[in-house]
Amino acid sequence: MFSPLIDELMASLRCLPGVGPKSAQRMALHLLERDRAGAERLAASLQKAVAGVGRCQRCRTLTEQKFCGICANTRRDNTLLCVVETPGDVLAIEQAGTYQGKYFVLLGHLSPIDGIGPEDIGVDQLIKLLQDDPEHPEDRVREVILATNPTVEGEATAYYISERAKNLNVTVSRIAHGVPLGGELEFIDGGTLAHAFSSRRRL
Amino acid sequence: MFSPLIDELMASLRCLPGVGPKSAQRMALHLLERDRAGAERLAASLQKAVAGVGRCQRCRTLTEQKFCGICANTRRDNTLLCVVETPGDVLAIEQAGTYQGKYFVLLGHLSPIDGIGPEDIGVDQLIKLLQDDPEHPEDRVREVILATNPTVEGEATAYYISERAKNLNVTVSRIAHGVPLGGELEFIDGGTLAHAFSSRRRL
Repeated sequence: MFSPLIDELMASLRCLPGVGPKSAQRMALHLLERDRAGAERLAASLQKAVAGVGRCQRCRTLTEQKFCGICANTRRDNTLLCVVETPGDVLAIEQAGTYQGKYFVLLGHLSPIDGIGPEDIGVDQLIKLLQDDPEHPEDRVREVILATNPTVEGEATAYYISERAKNLNVTVSRIAHGVPLGGELEFIDGGTLAHAFSSRRRL
Repeated sequence: MFSPLIDELMASLRCLPGVGPKSAQRMALHLLERDRAGAERLAASLQKAVAGVGRCQRCRTLTEQKFCGICANTRRDNTLLCVVETPGDVLAIEQAGTYQGKYFVLLGHLSPIDGIGPEDIGVDQLIKLLQDDPEHPEDRVREVILATNPTVEGEATAYYISERAKNLNVTVSRIAHGVPLGGELEFIDGGTLAHAFSSRRRL
């Protein structure tokens, strides 16, 4: 319907999550009619980010530096390591504002059906971090906190990591799951409620 | 929170309509984690479109060719001209599938408060199209159909164009406004209902 370059731009915009044909059309026309400077800036940012952003050498999160801001921060507690699935999870935990340790970002979860095995989510690199480093004994990880998502794959990933870490001199813990604060029991799903009951604590 | 290149990508994504901080974060992380090829393709499409897409010399719609597909189509009726605000409006009318004439796309509407006057929406070019062309008398526009939006600015634009076209040998019409087909009276706003009553037709 539109000219080839505009059709191609609409098709390319569909790679963005949550963007269907109608949104892609609205975005393409908006950029071409009203914000060509923004479109050029977006193109440049995309190219720079794709070319420059790699992974933190310690925690595997997305960054263009050798070590990400959190890994490079010497005031954070090196003895605590929180394992999450994505950089977005790191942001969510940082915004909660209580955790002062470091992170390890799997960038995924175990999913044999999609061909994603332990080597794809960096489990060997994680185990290496948990092993004693004779040169820096003060940096030894005391506790690894598994904060993968409470989905089938996230639980399987947490279980696999806990098994691999069993023989190391490190405490393995899992974040608590149950009724969220402010949640009303009436609207909580059965699985969560059952988990909340089986994980109840003595007061 | 993220590294500078990722933060910049998120900021750039905000130029897309309907994309707030949360969506921008989700889009940036999705592209960097899972679809770098899509990101590169999007960057290239953006640059090609910004560099290549201009305006149709006849109807002012967005196209990278001299004349858009509809203006170049010799089987369409040259004696009917429909005036719309945006290329998206052309698409909506084409999808309705009944109109066989040509279009004129204002790419905006009169809005003195934003400094948008008749010259910015190509009214002079439109009037020129409506004037008799002694070389091609068979292409003379018989009727101009004003299909600007039924907003204050759209109505003002339609009124202005109708005044300018008054002395030309051309019929000026406005698309009908009223209760949409399938709409229930109960849920139609008062302004539309009042218009539907005042524009009632004898059966």
